[in-house]
Amino acid sequence: MTERATSPVYRILDRDGLRDLLAELHEVRALLGGEPGDWQVGEVGDGNLNLVFIVEGPGGSVCVKQALPYVRAAGPSWPMPAERAFFERSYYAAVEPYVGRLIPRIYHYDARHHCTVMERLSPHIILRQGLIAGRRYPNLGRDVGEYIARACFFTSDLAWPFERKMEGLALFAANKPLVRITVDLVFADPYFSSPRNRHTSPQLDLLAAELRRDGPLKAAAARFGRKFLSETQALVHGDLHSGSVMVTAEDTRVIDPEFAFYGPIGFDLGAFWGNLLLSWYSQPGHATPDDDRRAYRDWILAEATRFWECFRGRFLALWSEHGKGDVLPAAMFSAPADASTLEAARGAFLDSLLADMLGFGACKMIRRILGFAHVIDFEAIRDPQVRGACEAGALAMARALLTHPEQFRSLREVIDAVPRMARRAEA
Amino acid sequence: MTERATSPVYRILDRDGLRDLLAELHEVRALLGGEPGDWQVGEVGDGNLNLVFIVEGPGGSVCVKQALPYVRAAGPSWPMPAERAFFERSYYAAVEPYVGRLIPRIYHYDARHHCTVMERLSPHIILRQGLIAGRRYPNLGRDVGEYIARACFFTSDLAWPFERKMEGLALFAANKPLVRITVDLVFADPYFSSPRNRHTSPQLDLLAAELRRDGPLKAAAARFGRKFLSETQALVHGDLHSGSVMVTAEDTRVIDPEFAFYGPIGFDLGAFWGNLLLSWYSQPGHATPDDDRRAYRDWILAEATRFWECFRGRFLALWSEHGKGDVLPAAMFSAPADASTLEAARGAFLDSLLADMLGFGACKMIRRILGFAHVIDFEAIRDPQVRGACEAGALAMARALLTHPEQFRSLREVIDAVPRMARRAEA
Repeated sequence: MTERATSPVYRILDRDGLRDLLAELHEVRALLGGEPGDWQVGEVGDGNLNLVFIVEGPGGSVCVKQALPYVRAAGPSWPMPAERAFFERSYYAAVEPYVGRLIPRIYHYDARHHCTVMERLSPHIILRQGLIAGRRYPNLGRDVGEYIARACFFTSDLAWPFERKMEGLALFAANKPLVRITVDLVFADPYFSSPRNRHTSPQLDLLAAELRRDGPLKAAAARFGRKFLSETQALVHGDLHSGSVMVTAEDTRVIDPEFAFYGPIGFDLGAFWGNLLLSWYSQPGHATPDDDRRAYRDWILAEATRFWECFRGRFLALWSEHGKGDVLPAAMFSAPADASTLEAARGAFLDSLLADMLGFGACKMIRRILGFAHVIDFEAIRDPQVRGACEAGALAMARALLTHPEQFRSLREVIDAVPRMARRAEA
Repeated sequence: MTERATSPVYRILDRDGLRDLLAELHEVRALLGGEPGDWQVGEVGDGNLNLVFIVEGPGGSVCVKQALPYVRAAGPSWPMPAERAFFERSYYAAVEPYVGRLIPRIYHYDARHHCTVMERLSPHIILRQGLIAGRRYPNLGRDVGEYIARACFFTSDLAWPFERKMEGLALFAANKPLVRITVDLVFADPYFSSPRNRHTSPQLDLLAAELRRDGPLKAAAARFGRKFLSETQALVHGDLHSGSVMVTAEDTRVIDPEFAFYGPIGFDLGAFWGNLLLSWYSQPGHATPDDDRRAYRDWILAEATRFWECFRGRFLALWSEHGKGDVLPAAMFSAPADASTLEAARGAFLDSLLADMLGFGACKMIRRILGFAHVIDFEAIRDPQVRGACEAGALAMARALLTHPEQFRSLREVIDAVPRMARRAEA
């Protein structure tokens, strides 16, 4: 575990320090070409936590992500162990054999400076920016569905004897500071008057107060908070929203897994699905005279459906082919008559993942509107009246998902309810 | 973690080695009194795994438990890391502040020889023996209910910020060899023709074959097996049957927590409750002309009820008074109107523990009749006809609990069904 201890030689990298570090790495040096002095270094990080450098040489370019010992968005007054980079690297290493090209290639992890040298994704952009711009990504739902299916299946007790998961469990149980962020910012703060919260005010004042008085809503959110902390189904990314996916028209990559830990599979599903829905609700704020975004909204809902269906199909196929774990052990279900039992049991497990996706997705929607960290999908809407109306629609849907899940008997019924509830709110 | 590594100086203790070891411990030496040469040492272990010594001096006595590097019942051909003693000691250390006198006092843990020097419980006997003898323990259900409530509540995310549980999770995730035993022997082997299984034959041949063809039964057992591996609610004892409880008429102590790990609270509840039921079903085999054991059976069912009710009451009281964790966080439910929400949410959690107790209890009943390790409650019944009939009754109840849990709307209805189903089977 020496890699995880804070290194006494840690320093925040500047351009020269970064050149020195990369100059020692043969593979990276060959990739960049030329001499270190020829390399162009730019800092491009726009996230809440880290430094991100792009280094360009005459032969190619790499991306370098360095964890700061504090929250970048807040400064040194909010310390945050830089060791989180170790968990990001460990997550990438754990899923890489299964997800292949759906993550960036990792060239090097430097334990001294908690930084990762990786493939520079180009011309990829952050999915969230693409959704705001109204661009379509034909492989999106399929790729992310496949990604979660593979990453979660192969780190669960469904694929391997449980001893393998328990080893990972011990390692990632140390990623406490990042899990603490989720516990507080997703499952607690939005539901009371925490000083860290903000919302579109005064437009959402009444609605926020009403939600914070809604006992069944709070109990449901707390139930998902409990599941988050006590269901170790698989190694989850932990922050798989549309800001953690980079895309081109053809290619999809999942990045930024520093929140990784063993948790419920539905948490990753819900993060992605819930953020697709947030994009849907934000679209009226990005409409232009040329594009009212109506057709684009339909595309988003179609992808949200495709995402779940691809996940479900891939997960079941993997289970069928690679189910060598201790869950539904093969020896117990080896007779021909067991086939239908096995199919029903696996289907019931997938049903529980769907319910979790909807619940966790709803929690993720609420925290982005009433909590600390908001999303640019809404923040970019200048007019607070328009923004507030978009956000209110998303809150209504999230609230229905948490307090009356029984009214939706399938994902289809949820997806159908999205525009119907929005029309009703406008009427 | 040096304590957990196999010690190069490990040796199986003989009487002289044990005297030398104890002679170095001031507190123990004072307690035993006299000189090491005066101490009487006897080996009394009758379990499957370990050596157990009683050491008596002129001033007092102690008990010493040493883990062997193999399964005692099988010999060196079935290796089992002696490091399990480390987890036993770590479990005792974790729960001791909360359960106090419900465990033996621990004087010393010797990491070199994987042995624990502890209070000699006298005149305590193993509860299972007392149940076979038809003895009543007026505090039994209350004490064990209180024990599980305190041990589990205070090691859960309900009592403390989750970081505490995650530290324990990392430590106990290394107790894999013992968890493997449970996974195989409780949740897999009994449901197919494993060579490790045995049952009363030919009396139960047909029933065993029928259960191994029962798809819904196997799916339910597999579902509890999955819960066992992926619900990290609290630090559980992991083997809390009536052979892990020592009793006098007034006193109750829980011993042998070497299977400890973070798992579902219902697993400990079910182990104890299920073994009380096994005792109930075994009673006709221990009837004598003087005692038909009918009244004693009623007492067992009353204790099985009291056990759950005491657990439930204590757990809720602890939650109310010490609920400082991340589950149902206080800040989210601080308004007067939240009191009823909180009460309902806690009640729903307890309902889920009851369902888990019944399901896990049923799994534990089945494994003791169709699996590898049987219980003396049944084994002591010489006549295979009588034994088979007792066991068949227990199997029928366990099967009903796993395949039709919805027919029981309360613990009362389960307890009422026990004699009713048995009468129907006899008729």
